[in-house]
Amino acid sequence: MSAIAEAGFLGFDVFGTVVDWRTSIARESAPYLQRLAVQIDPLAFADQWRSLYQPSMQRIRSGQRPFVTLDVLNRENLEALLIRHDVEAGRLDASDIAAWTAAWEKLDPWPDSVEGLTRLKRRFAIGPISNGHIAGMMNLARYGGLPWDVITGAGLARAYKPQPEVYLRSAEAVGLPPQRVVMVAAHNDDLVAARACGLHTAFIRRPTEYGPEQKTDLLPAQDWDIVANSLSELAAMLDC
Amino acid sequence: MSAIAEAGFLGFDVFGTVVDWRTSIARESAPYLQRLAVQIDPLAFADQWRSLYQPSMQRIRSGQRPFVTLDVLNRENLEALLIRHDVEAGRLDASDIAAWTAAWEKLDPWPDSVEGLTRLKRRFAIGPISNGHIAGMMNLARYGGLPWDVITGAGLARAYKPQPEVYLRSAEAVGLPPQRVVMVAAHNDDLVAARACGLHTAFIRRPTEYGPEQKTDLLPAQDWDIVANSLSELAAMLDC
Repeated sequence: MSAIAEAGFLGFDVFGTVVDWRTSIARESAPYLQRLAVQIDPLAFADQWRSLYQPSMQRIRSGQRPFVTLDVLNRENLEALLIRHDVEAGRLDASDIAAWTAAWEKLDPWPDSVEGLTRLKRRFAIGPISNGHIAGMMNLARYGGLPWDVITGAGLARAYKPQPEVYLRSAEAVGLPPQRVVMVAAHNDDLVAARACGLHTAFIRRPTEYGPEQKTDLLPAQDWDIVANSLSELAAMLDC
Repeated sequence: MSAIAEAGFLGFDVFGTVVDWRTSIARESAPYLQRLAVQIDPLAFADQWRSLYQPSMQRIRSGQRPFVTLDVLNRENLEALLIRHDVEAGRLDASDIAAWTAAWEKLDPWPDSVEGLTRLKRRFAIGPISNGHIAGMMNLARYGGLPWDVITGAGLARAYKPQPEVYLRSAEAVGLPPQRVVMVAAHNDDLVAARACGLHTAFIRRPTEYGPEQKTDLLPAQDWDIVANSLSELAAMLDC
């Protein structure tokens, strides 16, 4: 805790930690699914779309594919998912697909996020260390009122977490050694990678990110520097 | 004007356009100059420090030197200037030099800047397209309360204005074609380069950036898309 108090920058995972992607993607997808007469619970569709996220980044992490930004992956994954649901190519034009993909820029913050970030920002510089791209993070911040000081992460590093360059390049961009940066995330694997790079770690419990039946990341998997139930609680623990 | 109303992002020159570097650098330098017994008006010292800015970037633009961030150039230029004033090496240690260099992160906004940016941000995404580095822009924003949505510019592009990649890479980072970006600057040469890249242009008159005797950039040199006397006036002209 005392080491965290000396930090200069808090870097946040965003999808799941700061915003509730699942219910928001379901809400944004519902009108398209209805129009295409795809019979699926929009929440299940959101889960399916999200399930393609890690494999699509993995091809880039492994070097099979050059870096492309997350909006490209989200669009490709949507197209693949629609084929799986027997939606014929051409039922949606490119602008529809782009608009649907932009659902990832209209994700509601968790109820505590804006208040927590606003308090944390008084004392620490704050920004996303997300796998999202710069424009997506900017638009998401404007949509939800997230008061970032800067946008770091995958778009800057041109690599995907948990690759070390995302954490290291983000710290470098804000002018600090990794030891003065805290990674704030609801995902243990993100914190494992951040700690390996020398960052401090804060685990935020988000037990319904994946819905009421969530099985993963319910508990901290290591002795993270700080564990909190919300960003407001994190702010209180850090005297913000 | 109508084309500007369709823009999605306003990119700002910062040193001179948004903040008053000259009086701030003088204020921050005065205690050091006194301690070193350097007999010079701090405003003249600020002018001398600033005069080394373009030549130091030019070595990078021309390819003589690989890209380094502006804090490195500002520090080197300070060291060179102190030698010119017969300050012996070793009179200041590295942490003093770093702290003095960080004066560039403690620059007061012009009186209209925060209000104007806050109004413009309601309608447009906003961010610096500056030659400053990312950490410097972040710290300057926190110092002065500049409500950027994102930090673009030289630190992202790893090139210095007026090189085209700074404008083009900034537009790309915010997910827009150059035609939907407006460069806002108090310097005609910045707008010349931005226009050549396809950006729209807004000229802000800052007739005392270089002090009461300023000779340059008093008037718009081309038919810029918009000309204003302040960022508040720009906001009003854009119905913000």
